[in-house]
Amino acid sequence: MTDLFMQAAIDEAKKGLAAGGIPIGSVLVIDNKIVSRGHNQRVQQGSAILHAEMHCLEQAGRLSPADYKKATLYSTLSPCDMCSGTALLYGIPNIVVGENKTFQGPEDYIRSRGVKLTILQNAECIQLMEDFIASSPELWYEDIGKE
Amino acid sequence: MTDLFMQAAIDEAKKGLAAGGIPIGSVLVIDNKIVSRGHNQRVQQGSAILHAEMHCLEQAGRLSPADYKKATLYSTLSPCDMCSGTALLYGIPNIVVGENKTFQGPEDYIRSRGVKLTILQNAECIQLMEDFIASSPELWYEDIGKE
Repeated sequence: MTDLFMQAAIDEAKKGLAAGGIPIGSVLVIDNKIVSRGHNQRVQQGSAILHAEMHCLEQAGRLSPADYKKATLYSTLSPCDMCSGTALLYGIPNIVVGENKTFQGPEDYIRSRGVKLTILQNAECIQLMEDFIASSPELWYEDIGKE
Repeated sequence: MTDLFMQAAIDEAKKGLAAGGIPIGSVLVIDNKIVSRGHNQRVQQGSAILHAEMHCLEQAGRLSPADYKKATLYSTLSPCDMCSGTALLYGIPNIVVGENKTFQGPEDYIRSRGVKLTILQNAECIQLMEDFIASSPELWYEDIGKE
């Protein structure tokens, strides 16, 4: 059975896909409650920085440093350099990742900085990305800065 | 004499300060031209992610992977984990930093990933941050996720 918080992140990814966007979703959990949700906004807002995790953290608004220190960030996909760096900036100690089969961020590096990563290899997360990359490779390469 | 591009970043920092914000500014340069400008938007937009560099990159809009590969990012302050990670995501090869005396991001790490960093230790950049940190320490600690 899929973790309820990861399911909420998958729901965000599907919302993005339905709007013509890149199907990656994220939620931020503090004290066992979802405090914000987000999904990739490259297409929808023409954004270069609103990956799912960034959109989720922005939707959370200005939190105190203490709040971040007890947060868990859920993402349907392994966080890229930008999103991983943002977790490091705020000292978010836990990241739960839907899958790292279709893309892998700097996991060893953020582990070396003290972040605990949990990789679920969720079949639905993998399918969402495999289908998307096959249908829209240029958009995907743009999103991860690859030529 | 201050580098013209760094001067433009300093002008952004001062614009932010005049609006009651955190005085950090950034410009993105491609082919020797400024393509976007930004400054920290924590106060002005209630943003958790719009550091100066992020605001600048967002203002640039969706660029091609090839554009980023010939860009130079200017920032009045050493880029934090988030902003450094964003430069890594997009493969921005050059970062010119106003100063790293009042704050230092993961400089060794991004150098190890191939980024060329140039640190100017510009007196005006240092003064802007020293004055700001002295007058608004809580806001500053919030911006860098420190308790």
